[in-house]
Amino acid sequence: MTTIDQVLDLAALPAAAIPPAARQIARFSLFDWMVCGVAGVNEPLALRLRAVIGAEGGHPIASVIGGGALPARAAALVNGATSHALDYDDTHFAHVGHPSVGIYPAALAAAEAVDAPAADVADAFLLGAEASVRIGMLLGTVHYNRGFHQTATAGAFGATVAAGRLYGLDRAQMRAAIGLCATRASGLKSQFGTMGKPYNAGIAASNGVECALLAQARLTSADDGLEGPQGFVPTHSDAPQTEGVWTDPPPGRFLFTDVKYKLHACCHGTHAMIEALAALKAAQGLDLAQVAKIHLRTSPRWLSVCDIKTPRTGLEVKFSYVWLAGMVLAEIPTAADTTYTDALAADPALAAFAGRVQVTGDPAIGDMQAQGEVSLADGRILHFAHDLAAPIPSNVLEASLRAKAQGLLGARSASLWSAVADLDGISARTLGLTLRAV
Amino acid sequence: MTTIDQVLDLAALPAAAIPPAARQIARFSLFDWMVCGVAGVNEPLALRLRAVIGAEGGHPIASVIGGGALPARAAALVNGATSHALDYDDTHFAHVGHPSVGIYPAALAAAEAVDAPAADVADAFLLGAEASVRIGMLLGTVHYNRGFHQTATAGAFGATVAAGRLYGLDRAQMRAAIGLCATRASGLKSQFGTMGKPYNAGIAASNGVECALLAQARLTSADDGLEGPQGFVPTHSDAPQTEGVWTDPPPGRFLFTDVKYKLHACCHGTHAMIEALAALKAAQGLDLAQVAKIHLRTSPRWLSVCDIKTPRTGLEVKFSYVWLAGMVLAEIPTAADTTYTDALAADPALAAFAGRVQVTGDPAIGDMQAQGEVSLADGRILHFAHDLAAPIPSNVLEASLRAKAQGLLGARSASLWSAVADLDGISARTLGLTLRAV
Repeated sequence: MTTIDQVLDLAALPAAAIPPAARQIARFSLFDWMVCGVAGVNEPLALRLRAVIGAEGGHPIASVIGGGALPARAAALVNGATSHALDYDDTHFAHVGHPSVGIYPAALAAAEAVDAPAADVADAFLLGAEASVRIGMLLGTVHYNRGFHQTATAGAFGATVAAGRLYGLDRAQMRAAIGLCATRASGLKSQFGTMGKPYNAGIAASNGVECALLAQARLTSADDGLEGPQGFVPTHSDAPQTEGVWTDPPPGRFLFTDVKYKLHACCHGTHAMIEALAALKAAQGLDLAQVAKIHLRTSPRWLSVCDIKTPRTGLEVKFSYVWLAGMVLAEIPTAADTTYTDALAADPALAAFAGRVQVTGDPAIGDMQAQGEVSLADGRILHFAHDLAAPIPSNVLEASLRAKAQGLLGARSASLWSAVADLDGISARTLGLTLRAV
Repeated sequence: MTTIDQVLDLAALPAAAIPPAARQIARFSLFDWMVCGVAGVNEPLALRLRAVIGAEGGHPIASVIGGGALPARAAALVNGATSHALDYDDTHFAHVGHPSVGIYPAALAAAEAVDAPAADVADAFLLGAEASVRIGMLLGTVHYNRGFHQTATAGAFGATVAAGRLYGLDRAQMRAAIGLCATRASGLKSQFGTMGKPYNAGIAASNGVECALLAQARLTSADDGLEGPQGFVPTHSDAPQTEGVWTDPPPGRFLFTDVKYKLHACCHGTHAMIEALAALKAAQGLDLAQVAKIHLRTSPRWLSVCDIKTPRTGLEVKFSYVWLAGMVLAEIPTAADTTYTDALAADPALAAFAGRVQVTGDPAIGDMQAQGEVSLADGRILHFAHDLAAPIPSNVLEASLRAKAQGLLGARSASLWSAVADLDGISARTLGLTLRAV
């Protein structure tokens, strides 16, 4: 069966066939996406984009994070970029991208437009995200390495599936929507470090809504926009990963559920170390003075990313193993974005401690792992290790996400958690009103 | 000097430095673009797109071909697609694309938004089109052959330059606009034969307006979105044509002025034959009965495109040398889209004559050329030849474009010609009102 047929099957999956565990993860992502979005509303990118797109006006049918409402395409564009402004949203390592920021804005806008139940937002997101993850894997790391940003490219297809499901597209319309998305999807990694990166998430979401709406109106398009002649995959990947993307996982297995949440407002490459040291600290009660030396072993790929030895700004602290190690021991909260000030980069205690932290690249250690030893002043040596890929029990994940939300939004996060907890009893429009009222 | 710096120089060229001859061609393109747009308003694609995007509402600042007004991004999307719906708009063979349909909608919408003079619409278009042609050449035929559609990809950069100039971007903002366009531009040839092809022109125009507006609001982006690391060119072309694109033409030479107009509502590959036979007929007064045989020599690349021997529909007649040759001799107008009915494909006289036309591919003959011999019933043999690349005197081109407009729109074309003739005396808003009133 071709990929497009499998995507079409997925898009039409009855809600009753969605495994409850996968649905739960999609709802965690919904909460985390809303929290990241609300936390991002005053970022310069979000303020500017909201001003430009808001000035267009139009029928206010879809909620804008930060307040007000706009047409669905416009709201999706603004909300996608706003929710990725802090780069604190969820990540899927096999897809190579951020599923929620490209897809949830499209799902929510379409659901508000058609007055769908809120539960359908999360279900449509889940199916769109699953399509996006698999298309991202199909495009492969060669696509990413050439310079494309799967969050935007594969993400647009996921947004199309999610919005198209909510707009009630039949199979032929969904096929056309994917064909239109093939010619509409875009997004480059050369935007990283600029406002173009969060803009990419908005592009994905807006493209998804647009292609779904145009296909609903019976615009025609390529029969197989994905793998057909000069479709998106052959034009955008020199070596598509055609084996196993659809056939390996057992039926009912949602690859999306491997999604990971950022629980610390810093580079994802540092998170395994933070979790490992936090666990050690929780077990042993360590502080800075007790630690003579830390030896961290990490994946060599992270050394060029987040091993800044002498950060000069709060932003650079986010990419500094040696600073973050001290912060964990000193109980400086790593989850709140507001922690990462320029003053933190000048903290003398952290600067002194940084010299006691040694970082080594070890090819045997995966991207999501960290290992090492802490040498104590009393001579003891304690081992630490963490693998971000290890499953997190649902109750632990819930507690972590709610703590993150509390750190970012304080008491304002409560209404967002309540809305997700009550998702089966509310409409998408109520969910949208909750979001814009935070 | 890098390409981006040359694009930025071009975008900032003072109006006084624009050669009058190039400006005249840009105005011919403006007229032809408006004519094609108005002629396309009732195409199913145009009706459907106008319905979907019009339903969004929004501040009516930019004219929509077909009536009414919308926000600039929305109007650009609709007008780009509408004006390409008939595929009767101008073509640039070196750029490999259709300059006007991707760029004029962006220029007009931006100019109406800021209440610019109408003359600035054509000047901004010219500079955007020149950038687009050169970026299209830089991307090269390898980009086109891989499956990308320069009308949409290079076109988006042209639309960005044109809209950005009208929005008054400074050099840093224009650089950011091009950076944002690098992550926003898209468009595939796999849409050909579907509504996705004209949609591509709307995508280019809409992207140009969006990126210019966001850069005006100081969104940041890649420093060199074109040729920088993982910029648009290295990610979208395996063999960019870096030599000569900017350096070969003498200063003040606008490559855009090599643009060609479709004067017949059929495949561009048949136009050189039509012009050659029409000239022979005008000189000799031939009719179907006098001609025993025609031997046409054409570029081999066209044999797979427009050599349908037995067309079954009006659409297939557009791709049939043997039918079109008879139509020229029988004085059936090739310029009006309404000519190409299914009944025409069943015409017995044309069917009988088709058997007398022989078509041969000859590698010595270029894409824009046709040659051959007509054998008459009285034994004479007449040679014919035409090269679409040959310059057309301005007065001849004007007469041809006005005849085409008359064929498509009848007396309704007069107000469009008047507006272009009066371009230095009217505002962009008046131009827009004229366009939507036709």
